[in-house]
Amino acid sequence: MIDFQTTPQRYRHWKLQVDGDTAQLIMDVSEDAGLFPGYQLKLNSYDLGVDIELSDAIQRLRFEHPGVKVVILKSGKERVFCAGANIRMLAGSTHAHKVNFCKFTNETRNGMEDASAHSGLKFLCAIQGTAAGGGYELALACDHIILADDGSSTVSLPELPLLAVLPGTGGLTRVTDKRRVRRDLADAFCTTEEGVKGKRAVAWRLVDTTAPNSKFQAAVSDAATKLAATSIRRSGTTGITLPPLARQIEGDTVTYANVRVEIERASRRATITVQGPTSPVPASAGEMVALGDQFWPLACARDLDDAILHLRLNELDIGVLTFKTSGDALAVLAHDALLAAHADHWLAREITGFWRRLLKRIDVTSRTLVAQITPGSCFAGSLAELAFACDRTFMLSGNFPGDNRASAAITLGAANFGAYPMSNDLTRLQTRFLGEPASVAAAQSHSGKPLDAETCDELGLVTMAYEHIDWDEVRVFLEERASFSPDGLTGLEANLRFPGPETMETRIFGRLTAWQNWIFQRANAAGENGALKRYGTGQKAEFNRERV
Amino acid sequence: MIDFQTTPQRYRHWKLQVDGDTAQLIMDVSEDAGLFPGYQLKLNSYDLGVDIELSDAIQRLRFEHPGVKVVILKSGKERVFCAGANIRMLAGSTHAHKVNFCKFTNETRNGMEDASAHSGLKFLCAIQGTAAGGGYELALACDHIILADDGSSTVSLPELPLLAVLPGTGGLTRVTDKRRVRRDLADAFCTTEEGVKGKRAVAWRLVDTTAPNSKFQAAVSDAATKLAATSIRRSGTTGITLPPLARQIEGDTVTYANVRVEIERASRRATITVQGPTSPVPASAGEMVALGDQFWPLACARDLDDAILHLRLNELDIGVLTFKTSGDALAVLAHDALLAAHADHWLAREITGFWRRLLKRIDVTSRTLVAQITPGSCFAGSLAELAFACDRTFMLSGNFPGDNRASAAITLGAANFGAYPMSNDLTRLQTRFLGEPASVAAAQSHSGKPLDAETCDELGLVTMAYEHIDWDEVRVFLEERASFSPDGLTGLEANLRFPGPETMETRIFGRLTAWQNWIFQRANAAGENGALKRYGTGQKAEFNRERV
Repeated sequence: MIDFQTTPQRYRHWKLQVDGDTAQLIMDVSEDAGLFPGYQLKLNSYDLGVDIELSDAIQRLRFEHPGVKVVILKSGKERVFCAGANIRMLAGSTHAHKVNFCKFTNETRNGMEDASAHSGLKFLCAIQGTAAGGGYELALACDHIILADDGSSTVSLPELPLLAVLPGTGGLTRVTDKRRVRRDLADAFCTTEEGVKGKRAVAWRLVDTTAPNSKFQAAVSDAATKLAATSIRRSGTTGITLPPLARQIEGDTVTYANVRVEIERASRRATITVQGPTSPVPASAGEMVALGDQFWPLACARDLDDAILHLRLNELDIGVLTFKTSGDALAVLAHDALLAAHADHWLAREITGFWRRLLKRIDVTSRTLVAQITPGSCFAGSLAELAFACDRTFMLSGNFPGDNRASAAITLGAANFGAYPMSNDLTRLQTRFLGEPASVAAAQSHSGKPLDAETCDELGLVTMAYEHIDWDEVRVFLEERASFSPDGLTGLEANLRFPGPETMETRIFGRLTAWQNWIFQRANAAGENGALKRYGTGQKAEFNRERV
Repeated sequence: MIDFQTTPQRYRHWKLQVDGDTAQLIMDVSEDAGLFPGYQLKLNSYDLGVDIELSDAIQRLRFEHPGVKVVILKSGKERVFCAGANIRMLAGSTHAHKVNFCKFTNETRNGMEDASAHSGLKFLCAIQGTAAGGGYELALACDHIILADDGSSTVSLPELPLLAVLPGTGGLTRVTDKRRVRRDLADAFCTTEEGVKGKRAVAWRLVDTTAPNSKFQAAVSDAATKLAATSIRRSGTTGITLPPLARQIEGDTVTYANVRVEIERASRRATITVQGPTSPVPASAGEMVALGDQFWPLACARDLDDAILHLRLNELDIGVLTFKTSGDALAVLAHDALLAAHADHWLAREITGFWRRLLKRIDVTSRTLVAQITPGSCFAGSLAELAFACDRTFMLSGNFPGDNRASAAITLGAANFGAYPMSNDLTRLQTRFLGEPASVAAAQSHSGKPLDAETCDELGLVTMAYEHIDWDEVRVFLEERASFSPDGLTGLEANLRFPGPETMETRIFGRLTAWQNWIFQRANAAGENGALKRYGTGQKAEFNRERV
């Protein structure tokens, strides 16, 4: 089992050093501490385990170190910054693992840009030595890149010439869309195994500046000071701590404090039940900070994030995820309202940001997503976003016989109208009602009130509203869905979930990732005589020369 | 050899009937006239041969019938409109043919929308019987869809449940982005084998209206009249004729009147030399019409379009296409200027539209595109767009020894600043200088003058300017390029050529096509026990259930 939980005390590959406004995040990968046997993590190359630590470090910088304004990302090794994803690991991985690995690493890098844009946590990449492939892609996710001008430090994206694959962790997209490298120079760069250094790296915009080794520390210091000045974070803010989650795995059930996952292996589906708040909402921001990791929105997001990652990486045969909720809709709205009322408070900002990223993680999860909205549920505000992230939503009209609770409802709140944009920069309701602001406004005018199935159906908030005698249709749907091709569904959902506008982020998960997945499936890269398998053997890859 | 040239007299699958403002385009596929042996084109299913005729018919409607305002697209068969792409053909095709087939059919459907948007040629789809898969995707490319309300006529996208592939001819994209079908309803529609009919088809926006069979013709007539009223075309305009091209294929050389293709098989590359105008520019629009198909911009576009399609479909092993031009730059600009001066004239509009589509076809051609700009060339205006479409452009600074001609130049003209948007809706120079209008403006300020290599290099118009002693670098580049993985290059180029904004069209070629290509490569669809191969055998497909 791949575990996404870790702590700095257990890091094998990174050192996180905080000093006032500045943190140093030092990559120093342990060669022998790969996640799987069969490869050594030489030259600061990485596997999923290395990236899980990076993701954890960034999360802790957000919550535990809110006074940090600049993270200096650098290498703990001589002459190499980072050699990118480990090639033997890739060559030995299943297709599914390669794809999942890339998705998680992309989310982590997008998360760095999210931290910079929304939380004022700026990233400064200090490259001495070679930054190759995923190493340079990590740099591309930073706000500022300084490259040592020492005749040997280089940046490169040698994936295509060396391995017959793409710089798929955002590389191709960020080079053109973020750094505005001219497309023909980008082509030249991405087909030059040895990379680019010095003045040319600056002229082509691959890095922001260079500095000779003698002045490198001073240049980094200077750039860090300038970046810090652009941060909205406040010096000296005290953070909260993120202790390990109370997770229990027993048989086919995974239980957290606020989330329960029940796996039905035979039918290849899992039900994720999210528990709404059971404690009163804090009266002030101070009380929220005092609750810390026990504050429901944060605790729930941590549980759900871990559950989604667990299902993604450890339960590949589970094709359908059903979301259910349980609890008090008004309590969810009250917690949302507290976050909104203190939108400028660092902790509220971080928690809102966590939900934003969590919901995006759900959006790009390659499983059919279904919401079942029944009595006792609390699909309200932030939790209603779970339903709007789904491919299908089923709502019970009226009650099941013998159930005297209030009928099922969706309760909209401010959280549904701006706080949680998808990666296409639209809210989930704007995406649902693409190009129809009137439909969004109609829904918004019903905010704060529990909306019954008929109203939700009329407003277009659910796919189907069934009375209890027809509820068996949901079972029929789930069984039919499980009979379809998993690949076909992955492609279908990746298209239908992201209608309309594209952004750099959607382009990474759409245009770039889909092409990379195609290449990962081709013998020229992944076959026995392909470039990934032949790398380092001294034998050249054998290519089918047909252009497709 | 697959030939893209045809004429209505030779059509096997379509009937084109023109009557005043209206044309009827009747699909009546000959079962036994497939392009390859091994399948029968039952139920108006189609293969590439059927689509070549459709593409030809639309081209003739544009040039030969400029008075037609509305095309009524319908079936010549009882009870079936169109069953989509032929499944046995797909199951029996190589991966490369499937991908090329989809690309061409996508271009044809995009071309219908282009004709509607730019030329006022409106498409009305009259569906009686079933419109399944590619059949409904053809309808989606039309401006208006009328479905018979007879209890049996349906529209459907059953690709996923039946075949484990996507509705990849724009289906997934147009349902959400063009027709604004809600994403969960789109999901329901695309997983419902039997499709949707009648009122629900209207309610879900899959069609515009329904009509009972008794009133069907009247409804079609009525809608045609309304569509005609929106057309900018003028009734009674006389067209020109498009006779067969003077194409000669001898060994590895393909010669047209204005284009010459030389294939170097051993090095897997082809050189396409475009000849600039050799006759004076016509003095008036009337003279242009009198020249008809001999008018250089039209004649040249026809030659080049055929050459590109020929290389795409018949020369799969050729990985690099080098563009060269020969002739007088000012003559090219003069022809461009005539088209611009008569932008409202139907023929100028159609020729400009042809170049727009031709250049887009080049943009999505999965081969490395290179321009070599040397003395005697005429990379000016519309022909300079060829260079800006390329992945790399090499320009000679000065001359080769013994050549006394003027040095190589690029001459910019108005055609480079608006007439030929890419499918991302930016010009090629705007794409080249993404987000930098000042660089575009700097180039524009040099319009009309021959720009030497140094100036082009400074302005960023070429990748590299070499003096003759370094020109061998071009050979080194070409050889290196040929050594790379063809798949890797396809993915790389598909990303780098389209930085920045996406449109419905780029989403079809990016997000949708890349996922479809991935699926076409997966055993669940294309393997021996996959859904495409098992279709119609009575045996169910066997799926690897892992979600990737």
